[in-house]
Amino acid sequence: MPEQITLYTAKICPWAHRAEIALAEAKIPFKRFEIDLKNKPEWYAPKVNPASKVPAISYGGPDVDPATPSPESQKIAESGILIELFADLSKEELLPKDPIARARARFFAETVTSAAVGPWYSAVTRGEDPAPFLKALDIVQSLLPAEGFAVGQWSIADAAVTPFFARAEATFKNDIGKYEVGKGKALWATVESDPKYARFRKYFEDVKSRDSFKTTFDSDVVIKSFSALHGRPSA
Amino acid sequence: MPEQITLYTAKICPWAHRAEIALAEAKIPFKRFEIDLKNKPEWYAPKVNPASKVPAISYGGPDVDPATPSPESQKIAESGILIELFADLSKEELLPKDPIARARARFFAETVTSAAVGPWYSAVTRGEDPAPFLKALDIVQSLLPAEGFAVGQWSIADAAVTPFFARAEATFKNDIGKYEVGKGKALWATVESDPKYARFRKYFEDVKSRDSFKTTFDSDVVIKSFSALHGRPSA
Repeated sequence: MPEQITLYTAKICPWAHRAEIALAEAKIPFKRFEIDLKNKPEWYAPKVNPASKVPAISYGGPDVDPATPSPESQKIAESGILIELFADLSKEELLPKDPIARARARFFAETVTSAAVGPWYSAVTRGEDPAPFLKALDIVQSLLPAEGFAVGQWSIADAAVTPFFARAEATFKNDIGKYEVGKGKALWATVESDPKYARFRKYFEDVKSRDSFKTTFDSDVVIKSFSALHGRPSA
Repeated sequence: MPEQITLYTAKICPWAHRAEIALAEAKIPFKRFEIDLKNKPEWYAPKVNPASKVPAISYGGPDVDPATPSPESQKIAESGILIELFADLSKEELLPKDPIARARARFFAETVTSAAVGPWYSAVTRGEDPAPFLKALDIVQSLLPAEGFAVGQWSIADAAVTPFFARAEATFKNDIGKYEVGKGKALWATVESDPKYARFRKYFEDVKSRDSFKTTFDSDVVIKSFSALHGRPSA
């Protein structure tokens, strides 16, 4: 019998979302425990993740209530490490077998994440101009093959980046964030209409149409939480 | 016949050193090409790594002079991705087979690197107090098993962190850097004598005694280059 997995996660967090997408694709059963990031349970840091961040898992040990984690289970954190772990544990092929294709998948995940996160996050949370976010799309397009996902077949590279694009869409399209009013909407209109971004649009539709995305992304929660934290549009 | 590998690297660079250690442990034949980081060849960015950093490899394609890379070979960059690739390509076991042990190895590499690099680098290059570097040793010790390497058997997790400790020793022990005179020497004397750091010392000796380290680390070059860049002791 496979070991139990409990995922400590939060709907608004893109890093945690990576793990949820990968677990869904891995078809590994797990218990989901939502951590309120604004009011974390006292036991979370000492008993699950000393860094106090999501995602983290408990693995193995007795089958207990997630709110009283057993010292006998292993605790593992960091989204990049967890999605590799789920690929290693799964019977599904979440990373290609070919070593070079695996390296390309990891390069895509790392390069696209580091290109996208900064511009999106500093626009929403610090009010910087969102325009540099478009450079991340150029990078995605330069790395994508003509069809399919990051390395053709779906892989954890796609799990790694999808959460950030989904949150960029939810925030920019609804003009959520501290940047100048209208700039988010205008940027996302460009993403949705400029022929230049056709390959990105197809890729983004492809990842969003998978069950692993549809069952793990709650746009209402994301829109509400980001509005409350960073302003607009409910105001 | 295995595909050709050409490694573009630089003796002073800890990130590149990761790849050299992993390749030595992987027992994979390769051509080594030294990139002068202060005077990079014009062809390096356009033909090998657009980010213009080391390490990077060319993989496969025809057997050519490294200074005239073939467009037919694959180009792969980023040290963390390369050491995973070498583990995937090698007949040696450079990562354990057990998925949880693999996750632990990756966690060690990521956590220790991010704890050690900042304090070391900002002390040497910006003159900050070197003392916070000792916290990285606490973290190493909290993650190490009672004996052996990061996850018991030697793994790419050890390749990931060794280059930073080797450069910390070379610089602090010789008081190289912009921090207050004497602070590097004093810090390294603590590392070498305080009973508190006994487990780190044993670990550091263990990684340094391997051929993969001895054949890839040139302390003279490191000392000379860091002195020239950041001051002392040759002055």
